[in-house]
Amino acid sequence: MADIFERLLKSYGPIGQHRERAHGYFAFPKLEGEIDSRMTFRGKQMVVWSLNNYLGLANHPEIRKTDADAAAKYGLALPMGARMMSGNSNFHEQLEAELAAFESKEDAILMNFGYQGIMSAIDAVCGRHDVIVYDAESHACIIDGLRLHPGHRYVFKHNDIEDFDKQMERATALIEKQKAGGILVITEGVFGMAGDQGKLKEIIDLKSKYEFRLLVDDAHGFGTLGKTGAGAGEEQGCQDGIDLYFSTFAKSMASIGAFLAGDKAIIDYIRYNIRSQIFAKSLPMPIVIGNLKRLELLQTQPELKERLWSNAMKLQKGLKERGFDIGNTNTMVTPVYMKGGVEEATAMVMDLRENYHIFCSIVVYPVIPKGHIIYRLIPTAAHTDQDIEETLTAFSETKAKLDAGAYKVEMIPDMAG
Amino acid sequence: MADIFERLLKSYGPIGQHRERAHGYFAFPKLEGEIDSRMTFRGKQMVVWSLNNYLGLANHPEIRKTDADAAAKYGLALPMGARMMSGNSNFHEQLEAELAAFESKEDAILMNFGYQGIMSAIDAVCGRHDVIVYDAESHACIIDGLRLHPGHRYVFKHNDIEDFDKQMERATALIEKQKAGGILVITEGVFGMAGDQGKLKEIIDLKSKYEFRLLVDDAHGFGTLGKTGAGAGEEQGCQDGIDLYFSTFAKSMASIGAFLAGDKAIIDYIRYNIRSQIFAKSLPMPIVIGNLKRLELLQTQPELKERLWSNAMKLQKGLKERGFDIGNTNTMVTPVYMKGGVEEATAMVMDLRENYHIFCSIVVYPVIPKGHIIYRLIPTAAHTDQDIEETLTAFSETKAKLDAGAYKVEMIPDMAG
Repeated sequence: MADIFERLLKSYGPIGQHRERAHGYFAFPKLEGEIDSRMTFRGKQMVVWSLNNYLGLANHPEIRKTDADAAAKYGLALPMGARMMSGNSNFHEQLEAELAAFESKEDAILMNFGYQGIMSAIDAVCGRHDVIVYDAESHACIIDGLRLHPGHRYVFKHNDIEDFDKQMERATALIEKQKAGGILVITEGVFGMAGDQGKLKEIIDLKSKYEFRLLVDDAHGFGTLGKTGAGAGEEQGCQDGIDLYFSTFAKSMASIGAFLAGDKAIIDYIRYNIRSQIFAKSLPMPIVIGNLKRLELLQTQPELKERLWSNAMKLQKGLKERGFDIGNTNTMVTPVYMKGGVEEATAMVMDLRENYHIFCSIVVYPVIPKGHIIYRLIPTAAHTDQDIEETLTAFSETKAKLDAGAYKVEMIPDMAG
Repeated sequence: MADIFERLLKSYGPIGQHRERAHGYFAFPKLEGEIDSRMTFRGKQMVVWSLNNYLGLANHPEIRKTDADAAAKYGLALPMGARMMSGNSNFHEQLEAELAAFESKEDAILMNFGYQGIMSAIDAVCGRHDVIVYDAESHACIIDGLRLHPGHRYVFKHNDIEDFDKQMERATALIEKQKAGGILVITEGVFGMAGDQGKLKEIIDLKSKYEFRLLVDDAHGFGTLGKTGAGAGEEQGCQDGIDLYFSTFAKSMASIGAFLAGDKAIIDYIRYNIRSQIFAKSLPMPIVIGNLKRLELLQTQPELKERLWSNAMKLQKGLKERGFDIGNTNTMVTPVYMKGGVEEATAMVMDLRENYHIFCSIVVYPVIPKGHIIYRLIPTAAHTDQDIEETLTAFSETKAKLDAGAYKVEMIPDMAG
C-alpha cells in the first residue's frame, strides 16, 4: 500500500520543482501599488507587461468610484446563495441584458467565475452521444470542460482549417454511425499565449458543409477587437455564426466573473442546467455593478481601445525593427521568441527586472520545447511612449547579452534575500 | 445529422421544465434590501430562511465598514492575473497563514472560488492509479471533481461506516493488485441538505486498518461547529486526522472564495499544480481583506455562534414539539420532511410566502422521491425570537391545510402579475 501523497511529493511538477529558488520571484511574485504601467516589485518600480488590463479600466477614476460606492452601499456579501435559489437581483439581470445586446445575441447568462463557468457550460450542453471538436491550443478551462465530457472528442491542429475539416469529417461520420448526438466545436477568439486570432470565419464557413454549433472563448478579444469592441466575431464579421459567445471579465473588464451569450432558448436551457452556477454562489453585487460600469466605459470611451492599439502597434513595430521574432500575433498580445536554456531565460529575466526595471513573464521548458524561450508582453491603454521606449532598449541590450552567452553563468542569488 | 441544441430544447431538465411558471418565484427569486432575517420579496417583507449567513456576518457593521474601506482603497480589480503569475499579495499570504493557524494545519492555499477550487484540488491530488472513496451524498462540486478523475472510484452509502469499510476493502484490494496508487477518501463535515455531520471520527478511526488520506469539505461546519468554530473536525475531536480541510467562504464568512489546509508539503504541491488556480484570476484584494476581517470576528465574537445555536435549538425544538419530522440533523441546518405532491408543495410555499410572509426553499420530485417534500430552514445569528415564533405558527397552520388536502386545488396564479 502506498500513501497517495507520497508519489506527489517525489516531484512537484514542471514549475513546482523550481519552487525553492523561484517562489516570490518567478512564481507568485507580488506587484504592489495601484494597477498601472509601472508598479513596485520587491521595492523597485518597474514597467509591467504582465497584466491583461487591456483598456486600463482597472484604475480608471470612474471605475474606482463605482467600485467604492457599490461596496459602501451593498457590502461584499450581498446577494447570498446561488442565482437560482436566493442570489438573483435586478443588477444581475441588467448586466445580462446589456452584455447580450452588446454581443448582438438574444440573451446572456452571468457566471460567478470564468474557469468553472465555461467548464460547466460545456458540460451542460454536451451529452454522451455528442462529439466535441476543438482547437489543440485551447485554454486549460476548456480542456477541463472536455475532461468532464463522457463522449468522443476530436482535436484539430491549432488554427489548421484543413485539419479541422478532417476532424469534422470524422466527427460527422461517428454521429451518423451512432444515429444520435450532435457536434459542438470549440475554439478561441484570441489565443492568449501566441496572440493569434482563432479562424472563426473559416470555421463558420464550414457550416455549409457540416452541421455543428460553435462555442468561442473570446477572453482576450472582448473589449479589444472589432469596431465596437464586441470581440473577434465582430472583427472577423462573423458574429452571427458564433452560437455561444463566452468571455471572462478578468481581462479587459479588470474584474471577476464571466458570461455566455446566445439564442434565448439555449441560454435559458443552460441557466437551468449549469452545475457550477446552480450549486454555487452568485456574483457579489458590487462586482456586478462594477461590471455594468466597465461595460459602459468600454462602449462610451473608444479612445481606450484606440490607445491600446496604438501602444500595441508601437511595441510590435519597435520589436520587429530591432529584429525580434514576435511570431504570428495579429492582436495586441505580444510574444517574443528567443532561443536559450531555462537558466539563461531566468538570468535574462532577472537582468531585465533588476537592472532595466522591466517586469514581464516568461514561458520555458517543459511548457514549450527545450531551448526555446517566450517572453510575453501585454500592452495596455495605460502604457506610455516612455514605457515602450525603455522596454525596447532593454530588450535590445539583454538580447545582445543572451546571444553573446552572457547569461550562461549561474547568476541567480538567494531569493529569500 | 442532428443539431446538438435540438435535443436539449426538447426537455429543459428537472427544474427548467417548470421555468415558465416558476421563474422569478420558485427559481431565481429576488430577495431585496440588506441581508437580514427579514428581506423584501416581490414587494412584501418576509422572514427569510434561505441564506447561509450563519453568523450574521454579511451585514455586521464592522464587516460592512471593512468591505467599503477596502474597496475604496484598492478598487475591485486588484490584483490582476493568477496568483502564480502576477496576482499575489501580502494580504493573500496573511489570510492563508491565519486560516492554517485557525484550522491547526501547517499551511493553507486560497482558492478564487470554492466550486472550481475543490474540483481542481481533487484533480491535482489524484492520478490515474489512485482510487477515490466518497460519500454518496457529496455536493455537486465534489462529484464534478470525481468526474475529472481518470481512475477508479467507489461510493459508500451516505454516512454508512459498514459500507465505507466494505468499499475501503475493495479499494485496498485494487491498489494492491495494481501495485500502484493510493486512496483518497472524500466526505463532508456537514451535509447541507439533511444537516447531519459526516462521520469523520469513525472514518479516521479506520486509518488503523486502511491506508488513506482524508479530504473533508466543511462548507457548513466552518465557523459553526467546534469550540472555536474551526468546524466538524474540532467538534468531533479528530481535526488531526483530516489531511485536507476545505471550506468555502460562501456560508459563515458571507463572502466568495475558499481555502484548503493541510501539511505544508502537500499544500505546496497543490499550490504549484492546481489548474483552476494556476490558470485563473486571483481573489480581488477587498474580498481577501474582507475575509481577514470575517475570520477575526468569527474568532473574537463567539456570541455570534452562540446566538446561531440558540436560534437553531429554539427552531428545532419548536418544530419537534409541533410534531414535525426534522430527520437526522445534528447541526443548525433544519430540514422539515412532509408528504405531498409537487403541486401541493408549491401551493404551500406560496401560501407561506403570500399570507404568512415566510420565505423558505423546497426540494421536491425529481430531486427526491415522488410524494415527498423537504422544506429547508437555515437559522442564523440574525434571526429573532419573533421570527421563529411566526415561522412555527405558519408551519403549524399550513401543515394542517396540507394534511386536510387544501393545497390539492390548483391555486398558482400568473407569476408575471
